Amino acid sequence: MGYRSAEKIALHLLVEKPAHAGELMDRLKFAQEKLGACLICGNLSETEECRICASDEREANRICVVEGVTDLFAMEKAGIFHGKYHILMGKLSPVKGIGADQLNLGNLEKRLADGEVEEVILALSNDLEGEATCHYIRSEVIKDSRIRVTRIGFGLPSGGGITYADEQTLYNALQSRKDLEG
Amino acid sequence: MGYRSAEKIALHLLVEKPAHAGELMDRLKFAQEKLGACLICGNLSETEECRICASDEREANRICVVEGVTDLFAMEKAGIFHGKYHILMGKLSPVKGIGADQLNLGNLEKRLADGEVEEVILALSNDLEGEATCHYIRSEVIKDSRIRVTRIGFGLPSGGGITYADEQTLYNALQSRKDLEG
Repeated sequence: MGYRSAEKIALHLLVEKPAHAGELMDRLKFAQEKLGACLICGNLSETEECRICASDEREANRICVVEGVTDLFAMEKAGIFHGKYHILMGKLSPVKGIGADQLNLGNLEKRLADGEVEEVILALSNDLEGEATCHYIRSEVIKDSRIRVTRIGFGLPSGGGITYADEQTLYNALQSRKDLEG
Repeated sequence: MGYRSAEKIALHLLVEKPAHAGELMDRLKFAQEKLGACLICGNLSETEECRICASDEREANRICVVEGVTDLFAMEKAGIFHGKYHILMGKLSPVKGIGADQLNLGNLEKRLADGEVEEVILALSNDLEGEATCHYIRSEVIKDSRIRVTRIGFGLPSGGGITYADEQTLYNALQSRKDLEG
């Protein structure tokens, strides 16, 4: 947040609506005390096991691996995935000094050990770090050959045309072309 | 172009660099007189047959269908496609009253008649009109079952993360996920 936005919010809370400041503090305190990482997937949760991990209505044989909690929120908002999640809490980045040890990978291995999971979908970003992380998970973490490991598809985004797409996106789109049946 | 930009350019040409106005007119006149649509693919060309259609170095067994010349430019700039092109000059749009008759489809049929083309890649935009146009071409224009018809892939654009992707893009990305081999 920039200086001016911070100042605006501070003045709003202290001068215009002083009652709101107390409310905000209460909520922050509540969040700080009650919210933690789900012990299974790493999602934000008030309980040890988050709502999604605890649900019987979610497919337990499919895990979607995402970098962070906001990615999980985006997937849930889209309502397109009915399995469970696993939050990596980052991705491999030599530049930022993030190695495999700093990622939530040990828990992923544990979750896969009982053989219930049939597919792990890697929903990581379409960049070099995402690529490296997918490669690492595929070759070093998931050694059980019965588990299908997939990566989300790359190409033209929704509503996108060819003219203004960048070169890498066009390359991905061309490489991932699909047969149209007659 | 907005009023201010137009005014700026007009003043530049008339007041600041009057010699440039003559040069611009010459070039426009040249373009108007010399450039036309390639009789084969519809690309801009100084000759009846454009540079790409005339080239022996381009794969003649693959045609990439695009909506307009700027799409061809983008594909060429990316340097990812080595076949030939076909410019549709639009896409089906009931809203704008554009039907199949207004598109450059007759020429496409002619190009496919001799059996040399093995694959037609539909590189149309990722929207409803692009979808309808692909469906039309697949079912009404290309009836030769030996020709493979493909559509470019949709998903996360290059550099894109999950959090800020729109719901349709996430859906496409999930649907078009690919197996990672161990």
